[in-house]
Amino acid sequence: MTDLLWQNGPRLIHSEDVFMLGTDAVLLSHFADNTNARRVCDMGCGSGIIAILLAWNNQKITADGIEIQEKSAEIAAKNAELNGLSDRVNIIRGDIRNCKAIGGAGSYDLVVSNPPYFPVKSGKHAEVENTAIARQEIQCTLDDICAAASFFTRWGGKFAMVHKPERLSEICCCLSSHGLEPKRLRFVHSRQNLAPSLILIESRRGGNPGLTIEKPLVIYNEDGSETEEIRAIYHR
Amino acid sequence: MTDLLWQNGPRLIHSEDVFMLGTDAVLLSHFADNTNARRVCDMGCGSGIIAILLAWNNQKITADGIEIQEKSAEIAAKNAELNGLSDRVNIIRGDIRNCKAIGGAGSYDLVVSNPPYFPVKSGKHAEVENTAIARQEIQCTLDDICAAASFFTRWGGKFAMVHKPERLSEICCCLSSHGLEPKRLRFVHSRQNLAPSLILIESRRGGNPGLTIEKPLVIYNEDGSETEEIRAIYHR
Repeated sequence: MTDLLWQNGPRLIHSEDVFMLGTDAVLLSHFADNTNARRVCDMGCGSGIIAILLAWNNQKITADGIEIQEKSAEIAAKNAELNGLSDRVNIIRGDIRNCKAIGGAGSYDLVVSNPPYFPVKSGKHAEVENTAIARQEIQCTLDDICAAASFFTRWGGKFAMVHKPERLSEICCCLSSHGLEPKRLRFVHSRQNLAPSLILIESRRGGNPGLTIEKPLVIYNEDGSETEEIRAIYHR
Repeated sequence: MTDLLWQNGPRLIHSEDVFMLGTDAVLLSHFADNTNARRVCDMGCGSGIIAILLAWNNQKITADGIEIQEKSAEIAAKNAELNGLSDRVNIIRGDIRNCKAIGGAGSYDLVVSNPPYFPVKSGKHAEVENTAIARQEIQCTLDDICAAASFFTRWGGKFAMVHKPERLSEICCCLSSHGLEPKRLRFVHSRQNLAPSLILIESRRGGNPGLTIEKPLVIYNEDGSETEEIRAIYHR
């Protein structure tokens, strides 16, 4: 069974065992600045949605998706094939904590990640093991993510991540400590007058301090309908 | 000449030579959680507005305002007197870089600051020297501010600051490195659909990681009128 993300958009295998497709991945694909990106890496690619969306939207992109879980990696490879992107989306089964064994230093223009959001023993309890690994920092912590991103991103290249607002301060410190300077930040709000539910943050390897906080990305209007920006992102 | 901040509110001396009264200070006074605060310190108090507002709004507060510039310190002391707060608002002429010579370690429940926003040689050029010192990091850097705040704040006490969004990442890292964990963050937006123009950030000395980002504080409605929340803050 497959889901069509939107009319004429990529098609993705639907599996209950694997981490569900979320708006998080779609919003990150939209946020990440791929203007000058040729070589892209998605760390912890899950079903491959982000790598597929980036390659789908920009013909010049070749993307590697790294995934530790066998089942997710298989589905990601099938998803790439399903969308005719096997030549530009390559799925690598691997552990980003061993990034030096996976690829070369500075080999990507753009690195993206939708990592586990919650420290171990916090957050919602996930019964399915695959989901737990995708949600909680069981097999990789924020520091592992930033260290690997710093290794993979070329000097001057970008690392874009989606995460939870409550971890923003840790994220800024962790990125900076790995030589990835936060440069763009956008908050996602379910509704305009509510606290943000997600953050989208882009850092530059070797960048100078100075952060641009963009206008809020709001999902729903007051009347419950989707905002114009969200409809544009989803091609509705 | 004096300005009345609002009907039945504190009165403040108006001087063109000294850094202008801004909404920044009023918003910080409103944001800082003074519920359990008894001993408060405003680092770089300028005309004394924040210390005066905090003491005005909470009878249990005794506030020290530290100011490096002689003229500003004199005006702050006069402002405290003008509002009958000389017994609870004490202005100290001093340099926070020498914080150990000014006061005791951990002697305040709440420390607040509206520090210079811009690194030296950036930001808008300020011709008047007093104004330059208040705007640019000539006599104290972000690191000086965080180091002094860490020294002055008691264990478990709070440090609240108003600053510019573009420095958010540096601020988080600097606070954390001085043992002040960011716990509450609020963005001030001139209008709801614009990027934020200010940040309000509260850290706790010795706090655990975990940041609450609050709903945006919006100044103007779409029609240009002040929002209900701003009118409440200004008692309008």
